[in-house]
Amino acid sequence: MAARTHGQQALPTTFGLKVALWASPLLRQHERLDQLLPRFAVLQLGGAAGTLAALGPRGPALVRELAAELGLGAPDLPWHAQRDRIVELGGWLGLLAGSLGKLAQDVILLCQTEVAEVAEAAPGQRGGSSSMPQKNNPMRSEQILAAARRSGAELVALQQALVQEHERGTHGWQVEWLSLSPLLALAAGALHHAGSLIEELEVDAARMRDNLLAPPAGAFAEAAVGALSAVLERQEAQALVASCAARARAEGRTLVQVLEAELAGHHSIDWAWLAQPENHLGQALAWVDQSVTALRAAGDQIAARAQRAG
Amino acid sequence: MAARTHGQQALPTTFGLKVALWASPLLRQHERLDQLLPRFAVLQLGGAAGTLAALGPRGPALVRELAAELGLGAPDLPWHAQRDRIVELGGWLGLLAGSLGKLAQDVILLCQTEVAEVAEAAPGQRGGSSSMPQKNNPMRSEQILAAARRSGAELVALQQALVQEHERGTHGWQVEWLSLSPLLALAAGALHHAGSLIEELEVDAARMRDNLLAPPAGAFAEAAVGALSAVLERQEAQALVASCAARARAEGRTLVQVLEAELAGHHSIDWAWLAQPENHLGQALAWVDQSVTALRAAGDQIAARAQRAG
Amino acid sequence: MAARTHGQQALPTTFGLKVALWASPLLRQHERLDQLLPRFAVLQLGGAAGTLAALGPRGPALVRELAAELGLGAPDLPWHAQRDRIVELGGWLGLLAGSLGKLAQDVILLCQTEVAEVAEAAPGQRGGSSSMPQKNNPMRSEQILAAARRSGAELVALQQALVQEHERGTHGWQVEWLSLSPLLALAAGALHHAGSLIEELEVDAARMRDNLLAPPAGAFAEAAVGALSAVLERQEAQALVASCAARARAEGRTLVQVLEAELAGHHSIDWAWLAQPENHLGQALAWVDQSVTALRAAGDQIAARAQRAG
Amino acid sequence: MAARTHGQQALPTTFGLKVALWASPLLRQHERLDQLLPRFAVLQLGGAAGTLAALGPRGPALVRELAAELGLGAPDLPWHAQRDRIVELGGWLGLLAGSLGKLAQDVILLCQTEVAEVAEAAPGQRGGSSSMPQKNNPMRSEQILAAARRSGAELVALQQALVQEHERGTHGWQVEWLSLSPLLALAAGALHHAGSLIEELEVDAARMRDNLLAPPAGAFAEAAVGALSAVLERQEAQALVASCAARARAEGRTLVQVLEAELAGHHSIDWAWLAQPENHLGQALAWVDQSVTALRAAGDQIAARAQRAG
Repeated sequence: MAARTHGQQALPTTFGLKVALWASPLLRQHERLDQLLPRFAVLQLGGAAGTLAALGPRGPALVRELAAELGLGAPDLPWHAQRDRIVELGGWLGLLAGSLGKLAQDVILLCQTEVAEVAEAAPGQRGGSSSMPQKNNPMRSEQILAAARRSGAELVALQQALVQEHERGTHGWQVEWLSLSPLLALAAGALHHAGSLIEELEVDAARMRDNLLAPPAGAFAEAAVGALSAVLERQEAQALVASCAARARAEGRTLVQVLEAELAGHHSIDWAWLAQPENHLGQALAWVDQSVTALRAAGDQIAARAQRAG
Repeated sequence: MAARTHGQQALPTTFGLKVALWASPLLRQHERLDQLLPRFAVLQLGGAAGTLAALGPRGPALVRELAAELGLGAPDLPWHAQRDRIVELGGWLGLLAGSLGKLAQDVILLCQTEVAEVAEAAPGQRGGSSSMPQKNNPMRSEQILAAARRSGAELVALQQALVQEHERGTHGWQVEWLSLSPLLALAAGALHHAGSLIEELEVDAARMRDNLLAPPAGAFAEAAVGALSAVLERQEAQALVASCAARARAEGRTLVQVLEAELAGHHSIDWAWLAQPENHLGQALAWVDQSVTALRAAGDQIAARAQRAG
Repeated sequence: MAARTHGQQALPTTFGLKVALWASPLLRQHERLDQLLPRFAVLQLGGAAGTLAALGPRGPALVRELAAELGLGAPDLPWHAQRDRIVELGGWLGLLAGSLGKLAQDVILLCQTEVAEVAEAAPGQRGGSSSMPQKNNPMRSEQILAAARRSGAELVALQQALVQEHERGTHGWQVEWLSLSPLLALAAGALHHAGSLIEELEVDAARMRDNLLAPPAGAFAEAAVGALSAVLERQEAQALVASCAARARAEGRTLVQVLEAELAGHHSIDWAWLAQPENHLGQALAWVDQSVTALRAAGDQIAARAQRAG
Repeated sequence: MAARTHGQQALPTTFGLKVALWASPLLRQHERLDQLLPRFAVLQLGGAAGTLAALGPRGPALVRELAAELGLGAPDLPWHAQRDRIVELGGWLGLLAGSLGKLAQDVILLCQTEVAEVAEAAPGQRGGSSSMPQKNNPMRSEQILAAARRSGAELVALQQALVQEHERGTHGWQVEWLSLSPLLALAAGALHHAGSLIEELEVDAARMRDNLLAPPAGAFAEAAVGALSAVLERQEAQALVASCAARARAEGRTLVQVLEAELAGHHSIDWAWLAQPENHLGQALAWVDQSVTALRAAGDQIAARAQRAG
């Protein structure tokens, strides 16, 4: 399929690499969660104003025992007015929704009528409308993307809630309460829809190839400059590819066809090889293999942990 | 061209109506500016803490004279710690950048390789890259869209700055200062780029028509249901169009072709008429005419005012 | 009472002027609402993709009739993907919550134990706690201030929702729906609490005066410089007031007492007059009168309108 | 000094514990930075569209060598359109500015004329004004607090920038660029001012005690309920303390004085002990000792690392 930058076809790539890139922040999210949970899952108990005065000398022991009872860490200090633990979790939730939002945005773009490389579901199953039955709207992706953008609003509110006055703030905790639950719901919703989306996604590999090869097939320009550099100065090669790309677009032919006609005498260039996407994939296949291995390992780790937790 | 909802072709429309819709919030912005300027362009002068005490009895007269000298309105009360006038302007700037952002988002989508209905500039003039000369990146639209999204960040900061303590706040005015200048720059930059974008935009009307008519040409579904309702129950018509749309997609034919084959005996339906986009434009042409008139009138009004202002 | 800037006593003012300043943005909000309502309360009806094609030639008449039936304005164009009308209302709601937030922040500060110039309710009625019965927490103000800060989060989300793709966006309308209802609830809640707060507010005028006159009573410095300028160069007067203010603070006396001792020979200065807050209020009293008149007029206008509306 | 909740004196505490609580999120920030840096400081190099195709087979080796040369980690995959590493750093910067913002908000409140327990600098050194020499404005704290609130605006923009289209986005990277630099500047500025603020802070311990003991000295209520529970039912004790607190406020006496008069016969209660703040500090002193130890260890660790880095 075409790798796209600025919405324009740039180079050949594979759908596998796109999926591996979608998944890559999730591996980091897993690592981040492991690191933040011991900071987050910590008891807060300080009494009326954070000194434990009412509990007398047995206060610290009681804090330790209650924390153990609840399966929480015991705090070094109360954190009634120091909300960084909460906001750190909020940031993690935002990263989750946002990373899934990138996936969803890509799916929405790939679902466009003129691109049509994927669909969220088989035609007629979901996302249609009675008056416009030709439609196949990417409903799950829209929910995910809305969650990604909306999460930013919750984060800015949480940030305000870091400013708590004295030993208990005057309004920051209300702001925090209004933000943390939605953030959890948005991230959970995005995750739920992303799971179903990936399971149900209809992938049209032939269409991916067709879009890449459709005249003027400009995504072969970088490879063409590389191939021509064997017989021309690089700058000359670039200029020739540029002018032929423009001609290809104007004439409804492919860039490689126009170049081949232009350089008819140059028998040293393998035009058929140049026009094959498989020859220009760089590290895409190797990286997909590595990613699958890493994702499987993470999956095994999660499953093992879940089993231990009963 | 195709009207698109959820990224999917929905119905036929015209590019003119799309442009008229892009322009419509700008007319409202003009009206809003007329209304807010008398509230915004008002002198703030209250002395050290908003009582004018240091100026003695001549304070109010001095305020009126200074306001007149500066061409500003005279305030009913000082507004050193009541910043709604500033934040209202900020909201207007956000609406401007955001409305232009919608235009820019549409242009970016129309510039995609697979859509290619418009380009920001003639090929090779701007937005290319030396290694990928086939590209024609929508650079101006990207700036505008970045400004639209970024403006939201400034607005949330301005909102915080409404909370000023007592007669002069402790930090809100710094927050306000850090937000108002960027908002002005973002809106001005978006407006500048939008002006150039519209002037330079390359519109490919033939491609618009091609995309609309390309199989399965599903955007004719609503019209087809309408036409078939003359000879079938509406629900039956909908079901038939839905199944034929799916078949058209699978077979690489257009919906109307499939329907015509299916209903070969129904001589009462004018299939050639049905397959013509011009017959299904609803109010598009009339609305464009009305919009041009309204935009011209607004332009004349702005020009006349500029002339009076010297 | 003391006017305060940067949290520090600055000059004498009156509580009436503080209240008048709290109310001043509300008068502007009233004016803004009158202006925006005709833009906001407008029918949106464009059919599946904004051309009214399905309604045929009777579309425009039907739009006009439906708008009239609903008591809404008839749109010049559909606005399914142009959301400035919604976001403008959002901005107005943010201004309302934010302006009330400033009031609430002031009340919270005036309720502090060491200031104690107002209380939200009589002691023991609300805002206390069983373990700390001495407390009188400003619960309503906290809700209002939380609403003011939180509204900014909704605004930034609404701003993102201005960027709708083509004739119907892919996710912006979900973002908009998640923001508009909370904004309405936050503004309405803030308004409700502000109404009750003002009705129930306990004002301790004696404490206001005590705080202003408590040594070193530095809020008289500006007036002292003014008075001393009659017998000294202004710069000399400023330097003397500065050194006496420092001495007053160190010795637990008032600035005027220290100045009087320092300038014992200057019989031309009326020290008793200087130490009276009433002599240094600038325009405070006059402005309160004007504000009361303006607020009464606005109230009458609202009541008359409500009566006409039945 | 008084611990304060909702702006009201709640219980006795110590200024040391307040400082230890200010510092506590900074220790966690240190830990967070150690964890995120290996994720953040990673080379991004993927060629024109993320496949390294132009570099041929030597691509991966070149990536490893360049990363080593730059002292960066080598990426598992390019991350040109996966910006979670950047946004995670942004979140950390926001936590830093926000945690310092809480410190700054407390200082601003403690600097108020009526509280006056700390000052940012000795009188007359900074934060004054020529016309109001009595003022000692908390200028550094205001900068810090503005940075804390403003950082939220940058965070919401960064969150939007997570949504990058395909292999390179159309506008998200501009949004990211406009946000990351300010975030760094805001956090660095807040840190700089906080360092100077802490060094220069003038602490008035006598005033802290005076404010705590000033009638009605309600912060002793919790301790009073505890002491009275030895001779009364707890609910009876609470009711008595509540009524005596109200009386104390009305009569300008302290709560303990009123209670002592009320319970004149109860020789079992040590009224002098009850009126001493030192007897009601809970864990404050122990926690400060532990915090000093932890902060010293962190400081040593930072210094050692800086020395190793040369």
